Amino acid sequence: MQFRTLDEIHAFCRDLPQGDAQAATAAAARQASLTKPPGSLGRLEELAAWIARWQGKAVPRIARAAVTVFAGNHGVVARGVSAFPQAVTAQMVQNFATGGAAINQLAQFAGADLRVVPIDLDRPTADFTLGPAMSADEFLAAVNIGCAAVKPDDDLLAVGEMGIGNTTAASALCAALLGGGASAWAGRGTGVDDEGLARKRAAVDAALARHTALSDPLQIGAALGGRELAAIGGAVLAARHYRIPTLLDGFVASAAVLPFTSLDRKVVDHCRAAHVSAEAGHRRLLSELNLRPLLDLDMRLGEASGAALAIPLLRAALACHAGMATFSEAGVSDANE
Amino acid sequence: MQFRTLDEIHAFCRDLPQGDAQAATAAAARQASLTKPPGSLGRLEELAAWIARWQGKAVPRIARAAVTVFAGNHGVVARGVSAFPQAVTAQMVQNFATGGAAINQLAQFAGADLRVVPIDLDRPTADFTLGPAMSADEFLAAVNIGCAAVKPDDDLLAVGEMGIGNTTAASALCAALLGGGASAWAGRGTGVDDEGLARKRAAVDAALARHTALSDPLQIGAALGGRELAAIGGAVLAARHYRIPTLLDGFVASAAVLPFTSLDRKVVDHCRAAHVSAEAGHRRLLSELNLRPLLDLDMRLGEASGAALAIPLLRAALACHAGMATFSEAGVSDANE
Repeated sequence: MQFRTLDEIHAFCRDLPQGDAQAATAAAARQASLTKPPGSLGRLEELAAWIARWQGKAVPRIARAAVTVFAGNHGVVARGVSAFPQAVTAQMVQNFATGGAAINQLAQFAGADLRVVPIDLDRPTADFTLGPAMSADEFLAAVNIGCAAVKPDDDLLAVGEMGIGNTTAASALCAALLGGGASAWAGRGTGVDDEGLARKRAAVDAALARHTALSDPLQIGAALGGRELAAIGGAVLAARHYRIPTLLDGFVASAAVLPFTSLDRKVVDHCRAAHVSAEAGHRRLLSELNLRPLLDLDMRLGEASGAALAIPLLRAALACHAGMATFSEAGVSDANE
Repeated sequence: MQFRTLDEIHAFCRDLPQGDAQAATAAAARQASLTKPPGSLGRLEELAAWIARWQGKAVPRIARAAVTVFAGNHGVVARGVSAFPQAVTAQMVQNFATGGAAINQLAQFAGADLRVVPIDLDRPTADFTLGPAMSADEFLAAVNIGCAAVKPDDDLLAVGEMGIGNTTAASALCAALLGGGASAWAGRGTGVDDEGLARKRAAVDAALARHTALSDPLQIGAALGGRELAAIGGAVLAARHYRIPTLLDGFVASAAVLPFTSLDRKVVDHCRAAHVSAEAGHRRLLSELNLRPLLDLDMRLGEASGAALAIPLLRAALACHAGMATFSEAGVSDANE
């Protein structure tokens, strides 16, 4: 699945593929018949019905889970917005390849295929305090890289990112699309000190001032985002096209969908927020996206680490959904019988 | 490990076995060397150090995890406090035996041994609105059943319960040991209706009035608790003796440790709250116990279901702890190098 123009993305978001309501209803009915008080598995019940809806099966399964990490570099790093040098993006991609990163352990533990997609690491986006980070064509190309990374027969997608400086881009997107200014959205990212945080906020405010004329959310995504963010957006759209339930990682991955949810917030109906990170703006962003996180463990690593960590919760939900006995099968008395 | 008298439990809680501070420090140092911004794995880092402390190993592992479910029956059920008939306790124990319950799926998914320990199901505790639920000897016997269920070479223990009516006992323990009266602690349990909730609160208030003369928390545990609650307490003490990190399930399991934490709140230093349930008083109870839950998924099933669901999080934490490369191994630049 590929988009030839930004207009095609607009059109896609105007006529979003829908899930299978019948499968979701059948899943909820099955939950009500299982040997437990109704609703007592809480969100595990809702997760089973959500996966059922998007897989189109009353008793869904996750045979093939993909954890996909997009990587990009950012011109705004020249403004001193990160605690780490830009070279770390490529170094971490190498670390992913040799199996040494957190996401390697977490994806393996989750029984998921880890796919790492570095995008033009030797060609950072432009410094968006001076001009657009990307042209519309560059943005579209990155979106399409994200689309191409999704396989139609994936049962579950978890998306995340690696990119030194990308919490600055994420903050800029939030401020431009949701308001509030830099101070509402820019946090310490990988651990920037007070002076770095001040530089980061100044960069976001400078970017907002420079790009104030833009109104199309996709143009804003190009001007203030990054290649790995655009690719996450593309992957989320492709997952919607193929009806693959999708887990969003942290602050950056959540901000990455904003240009698209600004067209229609239902764009993320097939998504769940895997976790809320310790990054300052994430809780507010999830509230704006109407997404309630599954985990709240003070993580702030990126790399799809929170998304991968939530996969076992989904597998557990489906294990209960498929494996539990019904009241009649087990000979257990129902309430007030 | 067995206790011959309640005094021996008092003595144990006055001189609690300690964890291995050196192993915890070594684990934290290892975390700081791994290829991620310091602290960015959030609570996964703390969990690794916590397991290290209690297993006494800088790089701990979970080869043998036990999910232990104690079951008991409650005389107070005669007061109409539950949506389910008392027979369901034994029916669910049978369901556990044949593999049809949620905990069967969740324990299997977590790679844990499920141990179900029914305690005198045909001999419910006395109705505690009329007299003590258990004598001191009955309480002690149930504590010792809990102790005996813990194997010294378990690497991790997750404890939970099954017992129609036991959220009423748990509420009574909370009200007696923490104050606040029935309305602060009694919730809907398995899903009691408004009238049932009123009966439940009346039963708790009646019990508080009847047993007001008691001051020893263990005597209160006997008078207002239940056999499966006492057994959870015993299992937690035995796990402390063997230095086994322990996950507490929901409201009832958390209330079960109150008689012991009322002697010394450090009794649960080797424990983590696996989740906060949807049951009304649980969040407040965890706050009183100074335990921050790992999961918050609106579950309210009991059966150790929340505790079992948290086991994969611990395994994931240890996978990162053991498997990630250090900055020097991976050739990744550290912050501001």
